Amino acid sequence: MKLKDLYVGLDLGGTFTKYAVGTADGFLLYHNKKRSMSDKGQSEIFNNIFALIEELQEKAKELQGEIKAIGFGSPGAINFDEGRLIGSTPNIKSWTDADIRGNIESKFNLPTWVDNDANVMVFAEARQGAAKGEKNVTALTLGTGIGGGVLINNQVYRGDHFAGSELGHMSINFNGPRCDCGGIGCIEQYASAPAMERNYEKKLSMAKKSIPNDLSTVTIFDRAAEGEKEAIDTIDDTAIYLGTALANIANIFNPAVIVIGGGVSAAGEVFIDKIDAEMRRRAMPPSVRHLRVVAAKLGNSAGMIGAISLAAEMYAKR
Amino acid sequence: MKLKDLYVGLDLGGTFTKYAVGTADGFLLYHNKKRSMSDKGQSEIFNNIFALIEELQEKAKELQGEIKAIGFGSPGAINFDEGRLIGSTPNIKSWTDADIRGNIESKFNLPTWVDNDANVMVFAEARQGAAKGEKNVTALTLGTGIGGGVLINNQVYRGDHFAGSELGHMSINFNGPRCDCGGIGCIEQYASAPAMERNYEKKLSMAKKSIPNDLSTVTIFDRAAEGEKEAIDTIDDTAIYLGTALANIANIFNPAVIVIGGGVSAAGEVFIDKIDAEMRRRAMPPSVRHLRVVAAKLGNSAGMIGAISLAAEMYAKR
Repeated sequence: MKLKDLYVGLDLGGTFTKYAVGTADGFLLYHNKKRSMSDKGQSEIFNNIFALIEELQEKAKELQGEIKAIGFGSPGAINFDEGRLIGSTPNIKSWTDADIRGNIESKFNLPTWVDNDANVMVFAEARQGAAKGEKNVTALTLGTGIGGGVLINNQVYRGDHFAGSELGHMSINFNGPRCDCGGIGCIEQYASAPAMERNYEKKLSMAKKSIPNDLSTVTIFDRAAEGEKEAIDTIDDTAIYLGTALANIANIFNPAVIVIGGGVSAAGEVFIDKIDAEMRRRAMPPSVRHLRVVAAKLGNSAGMIGAISLAAEMYAKR
Repeated sequence: MKLKDLYVGLDLGGTFTKYAVGTADGFLLYHNKKRSMSDKGQSEIFNNIFALIEELQEKAKELQGEIKAIGFGSPGAINFDEGRLIGSTPNIKSWTDADIRGNIESKFNLPTWVDNDANVMVFAEARQGAAKGEKNVTALTLGTGIGGGVLINNQVYRGDHFAGSELGHMSINFNGPRCDCGGIGCIEQYASAPAMERNYEKKLSMAKKSIPNDLSTVTIFDRAAEGEKEAIDTIDDTAIYLGTALANIANIFNPAVIVIGGGVSAAGEVFIDKIDAEMRRRAMPPSVRHLRVVAAKLGNSAGMIGAISLAAEMYAKR
């Protein structure tokens, strides 16, 4: 009997690792998540990952399938040619210089490809999600930070030394606040979830209103829907900041689609439409004429689906 | 006798058209320039171009060579697949929707490729100039406007609909001045030659100094070299604006080289070094670790050399 070709996808996060086994077209047959143990040493984190892959190997057997390759998304800058972390990543201290491909391949004898998590996300959305079938796609993930991924001529663009597509660290104000990255006026300082919350708190204080204890961007969007001025103004400010960044992306890349993902984007259509309108006010008309701005479609599964799609595509190209 | 393979390159400008015949490696055997007649109708401009190509055909014969293909750089957005202008371009009024490839090919029966002039310039610098041998290159031309060209994975990046790489229209201030393009805070409003001159005039006025009649960026660089405070401050401001734009380019593209061309860049090494230092203060360290910022090398010949290199490369790939 011929076994079905299957692929493993892992999405390592600061808190959870999501992992799945699926088909080449990114259909997940089984998926799960477990804690990443990101406060532990590197070898413990690897042993944890090995156990997840073994779990997926069992599942593949039950499904009468054969695992052909492994895809892996990790935070941090990744040397894609070597499947290795470049330097460190803030939320997993011991992960510095981790030889992800080397460790997984020597344990499982399966070809493995590793990429940065934002690259995996844009790949997932371009192959199976909101930008399916498009060749030139830019993705922004709005959350605690702002991440970026770029697909050019149907391939993930990684930069000359794997340090490109840091769209969250585009400055929209040469004289703005200092960013954690060392830059000045980065969009992350204006439109990340913490930045939105800071802006909203400031507006509440100025209006002499009390600040809720459990303040999050969800609070802001809920209160704006109820008509509260400070919440509406915060969202309008954020749309101006993001509209500026998107106009830059449009003028620079002229992509077919800009995909907006991450927690803040879950606020939905109205927010995306506001950003889109602000972008069109600022961008060069030919750069946005055919451009669509859309919400990410694959949500929390994007990392797993992208890792599986990447593994399948690279395996086929070997 | 076997004739030598030669290629024609034309660089259409608002005032002059530069034209040359050369070899596949961008070596110019003969070059010249004539007025573009850009105030005339489209058919007159084409007839003018035809005469230049006929002149080059004569030269090719004298050189015992055979012209294999034609490359053409034009201002404006160009549909590279069709070799045709998209819409209009401000300095050649009648050039709207010009079918450049169609007209040249039907007259000369030679395969012709047409690209935007900034794309041709980055191609020239990457193949034969300051970024020779590099695969990921970004070019900025500083002059009356600010143009941009992007080479990614060894190919010119043109955008999903040929409206990308407008690097001069990257906003560095979401709350900045309105740009001619409709945008807000574009780098062109801060660091083009006219923007530098405006900034310098303002500083002179504030210091109650007289404003020279023949003010140009050359005046500013000359006076800065003599130690004049207002001129030095103008250059320092410009370095901050351009450093911000270059930090964005570094974080977004992580190119191997950023090439600075155009009139303002002729100010030389000291100016480039200032911009470079300001970029490094603002960019993410991994994005600039291997990055070089260099002055363009091919100067006024870049358009002809790029058009010839493009024609030769596309001809070989047919």
